[in-house]
Amino acid sequence: MSPACGCGIDVHTHFVPRDMPACPSPAVRPFWPSMQPGQTCGHRHVMIDGRNFRTVTEQCWDTDIRLADMRNMSIDHQVLSPMPELLSYWMPAREAQVLLREVNEQIAQAVRSHPQAFSGLCAVPLQDVDLAIEELEYSMSSLGLDGVEIGTNVNGLPIGHPTLAPFFEAAARLGAAIFVHPIRPVGLDRLVGPPALEQSVAFPGETGLAAVSAITADLLGRHPGLRLAFSHGGGTLAMLLPRLTHARGAFPALRDALARTPLEHARQFFYDSLVYDRATLAHLIEMFGERQIMVGTDYPFAIMERDPLARLEALDLSADARRGLRRDNALRFLNKSAASLNQ
Amino acid sequence: MSPACGCGIDVHTHFVPRDMPACPSPAVRPFWPSMQPGQTCGHRHVMIDGRNFRTVTEQCWDTDIRLADMRNMSIDHQVLSPMPELLSYWMPAREAQVLLREVNEQIAQAVRSHPQAFSGLCAVPLQDVDLAIEELEYSMSSLGLDGVEIGTNVNGLPIGHPTLAPFFEAAARLGAAIFVHPIRPVGLDRLVGPPALEQSVAFPGETGLAAVSAITADLLGRHPGLRLAFSHGGGTLAMLLPRLTHARGAFPALRDALARTPLEHARQFFYDSLVYDRATLAHLIEMFGERQIMVGTDYPFAIMERDPLARLEALDLSADARRGLRRDNALRFLNKSAASLNQ
Repeated sequence: MSPACGCGIDVHTHFVPRDMPACPSPAVRPFWPSMQPGQTCGHRHVMIDGRNFRTVTEQCWDTDIRLADMRNMSIDHQVLSPMPELLSYWMPAREAQVLLREVNEQIAQAVRSHPQAFSGLCAVPLQDVDLAIEELEYSMSSLGLDGVEIGTNVNGLPIGHPTLAPFFEAAARLGAAIFVHPIRPVGLDRLVGPPALEQSVAFPGETGLAAVSAITADLLGRHPGLRLAFSHGGGTLAMLLPRLTHARGAFPALRDALARTPLEHARQFFYDSLVYDRATLAHLIEMFGERQIMVGTDYPFAIMERDPLARLEALDLSADARRGLRRDNALRFLNKSAASLNQ
Repeated sequence: MSPACGCGIDVHTHFVPRDMPACPSPAVRPFWPSMQPGQTCGHRHVMIDGRNFRTVTEQCWDTDIRLADMRNMSIDHQVLSPMPELLSYWMPAREAQVLLREVNEQIAQAVRSHPQAFSGLCAVPLQDVDLAIEELEYSMSSLGLDGVEIGTNVNGLPIGHPTLAPFFEAAARLGAAIFVHPIRPVGLDRLVGPPALEQSVAFPGETGLAAVSAITADLLGRHPGLRLAFSHGGGTLAMLLPRLTHARGAFPALRDALARTPLEHARQFFYDSLVYDRATLAHLIEMFGERQIMVGTDYPFAIMERDPLARLEALDLSADARRGLRRDNALRFLNKSAASLNQ
């Protein structure tokens, strides 16, 4: 499939291994995932601490099914990221690395099998910054992955926390694309209703706060060249920016903390388009700029966007902007050339 | 001043008494506010637990200064609400009521002195729902106030929590206008920077979650006639709605929990216009409807919007819509006639 077909690059898709490695230590057993067959053919349960965390389909690990689905969605290239629950920040780092290494190897295997169709992002044990840097270096140099998926927080520390700064310095040096995905969100005690509200409602707020922490910590200023993308259209960031901008004019401490306007930072981040609404996507494009937004679908999970390019078609955009949203912005985020996807 | 002048009704302004009542019990001393003179003439410090919570100006209690400021802002009517920190949900309810009663009496006094210029919302001790209903009844029937300002949560319980349902039932019966303001927001541990980030960044997320809890608890369906307004343009709600709407189609438990679409609920709430940005305000009008948004400024605090009507002028609106945003939507929220403000 050639880019001339007008297909898209989907930067937000998830990968789950068909089988997990054996639990390396009784200490991590309550957190360690294992896979069990589901009732339906091709379905498997991700079991954690004796409970079914999520039932997933073979789309998660079977690249042939993925490729068929991609054709139906007019997507010719997917970026594979681990299912966020696998990030394992809550385990001791060495044990977590056993799991993450297996996930990273399997993502790399999928990419090697179809390099024109897939790019891959690794997972790293960010609860130990030095080990995380080692795993990122290994994943990029030895496995050929393009960057890393990280959570919005690491055991409660937002991505702008100074503890994590050496990781971002290393990522900038390595040229890693960083995809920021919500995990363990704040606000669960404010929800009234079924557990699905966690990902439906708490995720975007968590992502908005993480993006603000990247702004107030000046991650892009401190680590030139860093490429950060936020999932779900940046979550609530677009609603937070104007108030933060106004507050910077009202409170001297905020003015001192923010040398550049929040919007200048925000317009250097990348975002996926996964907001499920024409008017909201149009608003994000106006706020963040048409060069910063990329197709994202959450494939293959239940909440996925099934026809992502139709969302773009519904917008009043120039041909250049449309091509940017479909492909070119993702290529800049991944630091890849269009030609490299056709080899 | 007559409405024909094109002036606006500002539904989001705050009141602080010049002096607080004496602390009624040693048990609440760590929470009890007192006022101390500031260095600058007309400034006073709100002291709580030996610390200066906020330095406020005489605009907070002096109605003559308010009226002069209102003329400069082209506002001919303000709704007076307590400074949210005074809501005192964290005190034993009986002691809190001593403070709230004084605040409510002083707001009522300001309204009585200039009934054409001011409406008033009371504070109630929502940590004790029965007592809160009593205070609301007293404030409306004896003090002539129009409703109540409530926090987004009561000691962590979001407004949609079943514990609070009897209060909303009473508010609907009494015809109270309810203004929901963020307080003690979630997400403080996700902020990297000065304390001003709490109100600048955490407030909108807290309000968005409160509004979602009002949707998932079906507050308007369960209590017909209830009039709920959310501050700061509903916070992050506009960014949460499309994802919640999509998730309702993807997760059967959410479909079961939400008989109507989230947007149907959201388009029955009121919102203030306090988002400091033309494109964001235009997006809110598209999302929530031009009949649900009202002028709000946060007068007289540091973060206030100084020229609220200019924000409306910058929008491409019909004359009817403009008049709605300036005045008519607020009159519907307050359940008042235009004539009543001219008597």
